[in-house]
Amino acid sequence: MPAPTLTLTAFAGIAEITPQQSLAQVIAAALPANSLTLRDGDVIAVCQKVVSKAENRYVELAQVTPGARARELAAVCKKDARLVELVLRESTAVVRCVKDVLIVRHRLGFVVANAGIDQSNIEGAERRALLLPQDPDASAARLRSELEQRFGVRIGVVITDSFGRAWRLGVCGTSIGCAGLMALRDMRGRPDRFGRALRVTQIAVADEIAAAATLVMGEADEGRPVVLVSGLPSEYFGEQSGAVQLVRAVKEDLFQ
Amino acid sequence: MPAPTLTLTAFAGIAEITPQQSLAQVIAAALPANSLTLRDGDVIAVCQKVVSKAENRYVELAQVTPGARARELAAVCKKDARLVELVLRESTAVVRCVKDVLIVRHRLGFVVANAGIDQSNIEGAERRALLLPQDPDASAARLRSELEQRFGVRIGVVITDSFGRAWRLGVCGTSIGCAGLMALRDMRGRPDRFGRALRVTQIAVADEIAAAATLVMGEADEGRPVVLVSGLPSEYFGEQSGAVQLVRAVKEDLFQ
Repeated sequence: MPAPTLTLTAFAGIAEITPQQSLAQVIAAALPANSLTLRDGDVIAVCQKVVSKAENRYVELAQVTPGARARELAAVCKKDARLVELVLRESTAVVRCVKDVLIVRHRLGFVVANAGIDQSNIEGAERRALLLPQDPDASAARLRSELEQRFGVRIGVVITDSFGRAWRLGVCGTSIGCAGLMALRDMRGRPDRFGRALRVTQIAVADEIAAAATLVMGEADEGRPVVLVSGLPSEYFGEQSGAVQLVRAVKEDLFQ
Repeated sequence: MPAPTLTLTAFAGIAEITPQQSLAQVIAAALPANSLTLRDGDVIAVCQKVVSKAENRYVELAQVTPGARARELAAVCKKDARLVELVLRESTAVVRCVKDVLIVRHRLGFVVANAGIDQSNIEGAERRALLLPQDPDASAARLRSELEQRFGVRIGVVITDSFGRAWRLGVCGTSIGCAGLMALRDMRGRPDRFGRALRVTQIAVADEIAAAATLVMGEADEGRPVVLVSGLPSEYFGEQSGAVQLVRAVKEDLFQ
């Protein structure tokens, strides 16, 4: 196999996304403006926040009445009880709640702080919050399909978010939606270079792409929410799977 | 800020690394062979395994006598008791031990399966195991210094490993050593694009670089253990910190 070169280019000049805007149209317009073209085997990485904005996943905090459980948890984690109520509505379980920290299992299975609900880099954050997309794998599949039809190519799409980790400081780009490529690559049964079974058996491909793309998006979501990834080794396109495949099942969770 | 482009190129043709080989020499020879040059602001990502091999971190299993605790844990996780003994010697705490799974806190602080000890892709794996480098941040600093002197440039070095995660399937490239750049970028106190405090305050830069590099290294450590990363935004070079800075302190660990 020839030595692969991966190139990640953040799009410049993408303006604030507004509800009901077509991300496919925004990206289609931004490609030539950035002297870029979409080719077979490319991947478009998109920050969760712009997907949520396009899908109008805003919730006005004034319309949220916190229940007893939300008020109880809010007193512990010292967060706005209305925000905690939204977190609970988006979640299936509270994993940890201590001062300044509320980690839950999101209804999609992701274990994430605040159910991925965000108030940074959104307009009017004092009065509203932004939820994760309803179904980020479906959002990725839709965006992929629209771009493929428009440009006549076969591509992948990864929707990125920044997740904390149990034992490591700092957030890291992580995939919450994926289409057109293998989110998780299964290597079980393959031999290593000395003919022995591989220790590592599954690779979180979509998370590695998300981490790479996040490096060039800029951490403050500074208006570079779309990244073109070129040169991804073709073996990652063999089978498709969504980002929900990256979720470890509750029954296999050793850290509930 | 102009739209950044990040380029990651895996070196072809790097042969099996043997103990006491100079990685700096190997990389220096591989650069022109791959038509690559090293420039200011580049980062060299190196897979842990070749660093450990160069540092002769092999241990002959025949020379390991498992103690009572190792035999006890080995019966639970169904691993070789001599390997478990090595894991315990490299660790400060056992985090989880169930069938097929032994997660520990490595003496450097990393929470990782089997203390990062590996038997895949090493020659003679039936009789020996390969430990993590003694001090991967020091290994990274040494490699950086040798390459900087040889090429007259300022660069970063990231040593990568593949770690599992608590709630997600698949391993993901992770940094266990870092020199010449910010392993962890602190954004606390910065405003977001609407003037509000950022939600995300610390970025695991070295982990994102490791994840990106791992995508082109190939998962089976197929002989592409070195990656040249060019175009990393300059803000990541502001302050230097080692990968140990990415370790969440035990007293802040909610998932012991």
